[in-house]
Amino acid sequence: MKSAYELIQDKQTGKENTPEELKILVNGFTAGDIPAYQMSAWLMAVYFQGMTPGETLAYTRVMLESGRRMDFSYLDGFAVDKHSTGGVGDKVSLILGPLLAACGCYVPMISGRGLGHTGGTLDKLDSIPGYRTGIELDEFKKIVETVGISMIGQTDDICPADRAVYALRDVTSTVASLPLISGSIMSKKIAEGISGLVLDIKCGNGAFMRTEEEAELLARLLLKVGQDYGLKVSFSVTDMNQPLGNAAGIWCEVRESIDILKNQAPADILEVILTLGEQALVLAGQEGNLRKKLSRALQDGSAYEKFQQMVSAQGGAAASLENPATNTPQYETVITAPVEGYFYQIDTLQAGLAVIALGGGRKIQSDTPDPTAGFILLHKIGDTLKAGEPLVKLFCSNSRKLEEGKLILSRAVTIDTKPPDARKLIYGTYP
Amino acid sequence: MKSAYELIQDKQTGKENTPEELKILVNGFTAGDIPAYQMSAWLMAVYFQGMTPGETLAYTRVMLESGRRMDFSYLDGFAVDKHSTGGVGDKVSLILGPLLAACGCYVPMISGRGLGHTGGTLDKLDSIPGYRTGIELDEFKKIVETVGISMIGQTDDICPADRAVYALRDVTSTVASLPLISGSIMSKKIAEGISGLVLDIKCGNGAFMRTEEEAELLARLLLKVGQDYGLKVSFSVTDMNQPLGNAAGIWCEVRESIDILKNQAPADILEVILTLGEQALVLAGQEGNLRKKLSRALQDGSAYEKFQQMVSAQGGAAASLENPATNTPQYETVITAPVEGYFYQIDTLQAGLAVIALGGGRKIQSDTPDPTAGFILLHKIGDTLKAGEPLVKLFCSNSRKLEEGKLILSRAVTIDTKPPDARKLIYGTYP
Repeated sequence: MKSAYELIQDKQTGKENTPEELKILVNGFTAGDIPAYQMSAWLMAVYFQGMTPGETLAYTRVMLESGRRMDFSYLDGFAVDKHSTGGVGDKVSLILGPLLAACGCYVPMISGRGLGHTGGTLDKLDSIPGYRTGIELDEFKKIVETVGISMIGQTDDICPADRAVYALRDVTSTVASLPLISGSIMSKKIAEGISGLVLDIKCGNGAFMRTEEEAELLARLLLKVGQDYGLKVSFSVTDMNQPLGNAAGIWCEVRESIDILKNQAPADILEVILTLGEQALVLAGQEGNLRKKLSRALQDGSAYEKFQQMVSAQGGAAASLENPATNTPQYETVITAPVEGYFYQIDTLQAGLAVIALGGGRKIQSDTPDPTAGFILLHKIGDTLKAGEPLVKLFCSNSRKLEEGKLILSRAVTIDTKPPDARKLIYGTYP
Repeated sequence: MKSAYELIQDKQTGKENTPEELKILVNGFTAGDIPAYQMSAWLMAVYFQGMTPGETLAYTRVMLESGRRMDFSYLDGFAVDKHSTGGVGDKVSLILGPLLAACGCYVPMISGRGLGHTGGTLDKLDSIPGYRTGIELDEFKKIVETVGISMIGQTDDICPADRAVYALRDVTSTVASLPLISGSIMSKKIAEGISGLVLDIKCGNGAFMRTEEEAELLARLLLKVGQDYGLKVSFSVTDMNQPLGNAAGIWCEVRESIDILKNQAPADILEVILTLGEQALVLAGQEGNLRKKLSRALQDGSAYEKFQQMVSAQGGAAASLENPATNTPQYETVITAPVEGYFYQIDTLQAGLAVIALGGGRKIQSDTPDPTAGFILLHKIGDTLKAGEPLVKLFCSNSRKLEEGKLILSRAVTIDTKPPDARKLIYGTYP
């Protein structure tokens, strides 16, 4: 049997690690037998050398088999989930989950925290007073069965090896590796026991994948791994060159999600929701005018009802959702347009970092986010602005952080005399 | 100030680390403020991305300035040292050091242990009964002053940061990086306080640099760093496609060194010694027929006398050098030629691993080598062999290990009906 040293060396020099070797490496690290400094050297070698499709699949399997794999195939409906590679203002899960449940699907959704400059569904759920994201898998299962949807955080039972490796990747700059991303995402999704998965692969200056080509490469990799495990998989490559919708932060995104669930959606996010929703219902084998069916569930309140039912089932105070006193920020300020012109572009990564500066994210793992922090874009790219016209509203509960976030965000926006080029919202879909 | 994470990311994405950043990274790691898992990720990123000449110089400076830098410029002669990148049977330091001292140079030599499959001068010195390799720098200095040469191991005072980083590189497969090798070698040599350095860059199937091109690349890098510190530097690129001389192991190499110091040298190692020796004396500003001068010091016993004086000064029993009872192996065996033919080639890396298997090296850092272990090549590449003729003699003090080493070494030699191509011993010299 090869030593950890030899497994690093093999990867480093372009040789393949066998499935058995990947198992020994990952499980050895998780058990504490292989030190973190060897694992991180291996991870960096993977960053540079990549993995073959066979290695990616085997790596995913090791992650998956390190924990419990659920099964929802006994249900009378299709179990489906959606995963986004992350962005700024990306609150789609909070809306699409209940919407799909309202359309007859079962949605067992295990979400993560904010990553880098991006927001995390779990942080948003945690801002709902009383909502328990840390429930056990058996309770999770029961809520999925009865309500049709449950949204929780990763538990110790699900892919514990991924948790351990992920924590190391997060501090060693080895997150941005397609096969490692793929293993991490897909093992957790497969462990959910779903039959179908819709992937929202973000691309643009606020996404981990900057270009359409990179995004599609990741999408195809995730698709292949999912299909190898018998999942039905669809994907869309969607734009992240500006925040999605208007709100970015924590509670402000929950609030905007509620507005959308009540059929008051900004055009861009509505289009993303309907595109992904339609893909999910196709995977579920539904037929007819599916976009119309989804729109109706937003119009008739059934999607919002599912959301409220889920919040109640998980201990949340449904009344607090509509209470203006919930998570009210102590401070707020406004960035105005310095000159007349077109809202030309926004550095969306910096916009995400502005949310973190406001307190709405983590600089180090142990930070607790301020649920009141965030911003609302009062205009989208392409809008015309008068000099002095309000462009962004920012808020949080720490006056120093408010100024810090304002500084970052004010530098991230560009006003120009010429209009921006036409942009796409949906770059492509599969199938 | 950037975080360790950002310094990893910069290196990973091809950006330069500044001198100040390298200092913070290396010293932070040495002090325990930056965890080993971040340092190893950075080291692996360096392995893939390399360093600019400026980074290499700055990295060397950090290593150097982490400890004490000696100074022998007050002496009435030239302080010179020799460094080899390592091989199998490479005992040149044990001979060349005393030889240069006999020719009027001062030789303050700090040596290392065996690395990978290669032997280390320090392990050989440790096999001399009584010899103290761990003396303090002040005593080292005094012996250099009075005898003209002292050979010791790395102390805590010399480049402590290199010790810490090296230990990590050794277990994370990040040794084979030119700038890291350069920083490690040159910081220690510059710290010795020498004025001149001769480099023996090994190349071939038993060297870390497999090709002449790689070897020359490393040589030029070491040369540049040395010259930037005001050292006079020469180098030779020499062959390591078979063990150098006849003996490879621990005590057997000390014994062969004594034979050579007594003017009984195999042709190949003698040529390497005279080539490097001449380069050293040129650096020292000596003129005339320097090869003849070196040969005479071997013939008239003055080089051996220096060796004996040094051994005595460092507490060794000079009488033990000639005593056949010193480090006598308990077991020995012979590998014979299985067929008639030419000794066509030897996998020298495997030959080095055979020494380790015999007990003459370390599989893990905490192993204590068996000083009796080693082998003697009874023929060199190109010799004709009869079937059944003894080819290698192996010995050590553990019968199981003897068989293990024999198996590895017997697989490493190739006999063929056709003679091998002509080979070079010295590929090139500079200047």
